[in-house]
Amino acid sequence: MSAHRILLGEDALPRKWYNVLADMKTKPEPYLHPGTKKPVGPDDLSAIFPMELIGQEVSTDRWIDIPQEVLDVLSLWRPTPLHRALKLEQALGTPAHIYYKNESVSPPGSHKPNTAVPQAYYNKKAGIKRLATETGAGQWGSALSFACKYFDLECMVYMVKVSYQQKPYRRSMMHTWGGTVIPSPSDKTNAGRAILAQFPDSPGSLGIAISEAVEDAATRKDTNYALGSVLNHVILHQSVIGLETQKQLKIAGDEPDILIGCTGGGSNFGGFVAPFIPDKLENEKMRIIAVEPSSCPTLTRGAFAYDFGDTAKMTPLMKMYTLGHDFVPPGIHAGGLRYHGMAPIVSAMKGDGTIEAVALDQLECFEAAVLFARTEGIIPAPETSHAICSAIKEARKCKETGEKKTIVFNLSGHGHFDMGAYDAYFANKLVNFPYPQEAIEKSMASLPQV
Amino acid sequence: MSAHRILLGEDALPRKWYNVLADMKTKPEPYLHPGTKKPVGPDDLSAIFPMELIGQEVSTDRWIDIPQEVLDVLSLWRPTPLHRALKLEQALGTPAHIYYKNESVSPPGSHKPNTAVPQAYYNKKAGIKRLATETGAGQWGSALSFACKYFDLECMVYMVKVSYQQKPYRRSMMHTWGGTVIPSPSDKTNAGRAILAQFPDSPGSLGIAISEAVEDAATRKDTNYALGSVLNHVILHQSVIGLETQKQLKIAGDEPDILIGCTGGGSNFGGFVAPFIPDKLENEKMRIIAVEPSSCPTLTRGAFAYDFGDTAKMTPLMKMYTLGHDFVPPGIHAGGLRYHGMAPIVSAMKGDGTIEAVALDQLECFEAAVLFARTEGIIPAPETSHAICSAIKEARKCKETGEKKTIVFNLSGHGHFDMGAYDAYFANKLVNFPYPQEAIEKSMASLPQV
Repeated sequence: MSAHRILLGEDALPRKWYNVLADMKTKPEPYLHPGTKKPVGPDDLSAIFPMELIGQEVSTDRWIDIPQEVLDVLSLWRPTPLHRALKLEQALGTPAHIYYKNESVSPPGSHKPNTAVPQAYYNKKAGIKRLATETGAGQWGSALSFACKYFDLECMVYMVKVSYQQKPYRRSMMHTWGGTVIPSPSDKTNAGRAILAQFPDSPGSLGIAISEAVEDAATRKDTNYALGSVLNHVILHQSVIGLETQKQLKIAGDEPDILIGCTGGGSNFGGFVAPFIPDKLENEKMRIIAVEPSSCPTLTRGAFAYDFGDTAKMTPLMKMYTLGHDFVPPGIHAGGLRYHGMAPIVSAMKGDGTIEAVALDQLECFEAAVLFARTEGIIPAPETSHAICSAIKEARKCKETGEKKTIVFNLSGHGHFDMGAYDAYFANKLVNFPYPQEAIEKSMASLPQV
Repeated sequence: MSAHRILLGEDALPRKWYNVLADMKTKPEPYLHPGTKKPVGPDDLSAIFPMELIGQEVSTDRWIDIPQEVLDVLSLWRPTPLHRALKLEQALGTPAHIYYKNESVSPPGSHKPNTAVPQAYYNKKAGIKRLATETGAGQWGSALSFACKYFDLECMVYMVKVSYQQKPYRRSMMHTWGGTVIPSPSDKTNAGRAILAQFPDSPGSLGIAISEAVEDAATRKDTNYALGSVLNHVILHQSVIGLETQKQLKIAGDEPDILIGCTGGGSNFGGFVAPFIPDKLENEKMRIIAVEPSSCPTLTRGAFAYDFGDTAKMTPLMKMYTLGHDFVPPGIHAGGLRYHGMAPIVSAMKGDGTIEAVALDQLECFEAAVLFARTEGIIPAPETSHAICSAIKEARKCKETGEKKTIVFNLSGHGHFDMGAYDAYFANKLVNFPYPQEAIEKSMASLPQV
């Protein structure tokens, strides 16, 4: 019996986060103040973030200690397994070795608590009572509700309306951990009311929900904002994924030729690949692939430009790949990938050619997800199916060429709260949305002048 | 940091099942033919079971080899972790050590695939093309759909109607693995039509669904029947739970004072405690507690008598604790515990005092489930919440007495497909059903004369 899983004991849980900013070929540009368009300082961010997270956001130290209180919660499910996808390999008849890092084993079902836990911890330490956030598919809102419970913080979640409707049980999960959830756009904020006035039937977007959560946090002294992706400190916290994967691949005796992750804001992809970047910069042949939906093709069709992180232009301007801050993507089921921008770290790596990107259609991703469920057993989240689909394509290429490559992807989450999407797929009710050319052109035209 | 999880590598996966029939103080009585009331022979069972499973059903060998083809699938998720519930202990302020064996990590989310996989394997080996089964909460139907996919068998699931309505996404999960699911009672079988004629609004029960599945299997040559609980070979297959737990407790350096599992038909409880039975028979002080719902109090209020396993009286008569084969329990959310009978092995152990039993109310179990979710992170299935509630009660007793007992329970499944039940709980819409005295008296009066 070949090993299906490479497990690590609790003693192998990383004690330090790896900060890829120390090693990137091209560093991200500084954030700019949305009003003055001058670089933001720590004080500009302190209205919504605690100082320790702001420090991590700008740090270029290669290693940053993980507090014991954070390790103590992470160890409820970490280290996570690395699986060799033997049954998928057999089904494909590929000579490739396929591995997947299984982040679906966390209680909320994804990689998101890796950063939710430290964010809740640092906010609690700073005396904050309440966190406000947005969520797309609900993975992040679940993770933050879960984390807030450990540090006795209130959690307020603005959930993108289309996902709120598609996934009622994500809301129930947040309630179980004590979170409050409302659909966004909502009538609770100026940002939400403005959108509703113009588009009463808006399905919402991550950009809108971020505006609502930022406004909530900025207008309440007891409340900070927490972001589940995009920012440097989020990718820092997610580096535990890649650090464990490196140890596990060493045990398996394989070196990665291709690393693959799906990208919405870039958090699971960034954390998964970050520790491999020094290797990549020494080894031209190694490939790192970011996979996005063709309905929201930020890295493959967007501009590399300064833009707002949210629709209401409340966040700092970030230099990133973007489709424009008022782009509302079609209502694909991979709600966590419906974001107009991309993490500045991931964007910089795409900009200088460290990584490559592909955009895939909804139907081919669901087809890949079902093949994966019927071979490896795990039913993946629609977001994750993008990484799976890309891995399968690369493994099929290996079958054609006879190359025995090692393909490693991040299984960012399970699909237990996305079964409505699978129902729609089996009932032939899912479509590939046409490329939203007009909407993208319109939103790209509104990119801010910097 | 104290260890939260005790992990075992793939090399620690049991290679043999443990058969508790070899060591029980009192053996179960033989099954009787439903017509002749004489002991059944292998030929009587061969219409619906393959010969290798019939052999395991009657074997008294202490150890039975697990086929490599079965190990190869089980190793997708086994060995499962044993967790020390440190955060729950802290919340309770108890000196007790609480451990839980985490069977929720399997792809279908429970212990059920431990027996679904070997049952599918032996049926495939015997040339069968299709399996028919019943499911309550959907855990067993999911597990059999999952297992059938690996051995290229069709899977037909009769799902208890109340659960079919409460848990639509369980059905989606079975579809994803290729299973077919219909609500029971259905119009597809004589047994189903007879119930519908008398009770058009029947919520269904496991007893009725078993009748439908047995009829389906008995009337089609290409089809066998698979049962997810009750039978000896099921408890045999589930012994991997207890065998791994023994190794893990040794690593943790603790010996169990109290073992706890929830009981519907007895499969997770039986497999969890079986390998500990020889210890128990040498150590009077060790306690083994079966926890059932007060709405279906088989072990605590039933008769220890011969009865049918199903409503339509198609199965052999089994000597077991029973509330009568036509008892239809109130529609509690722990659908997997809504069974009128109990595994003959578990019944015999209750009969001779090897184990004890308690019955708990729905609301106290949900309260325990929420406390567990907010401390250990995992949202448990409503069935599992019965074991959790009992473990918490025992840990609280330890707090009162100051005793540092070691309490180990089986976390039989997660509640990701039961969030509607949690919604109802938070909305104060769940009730403790009154003890169904009249229904039980009526069904007990119809126990067969043997």
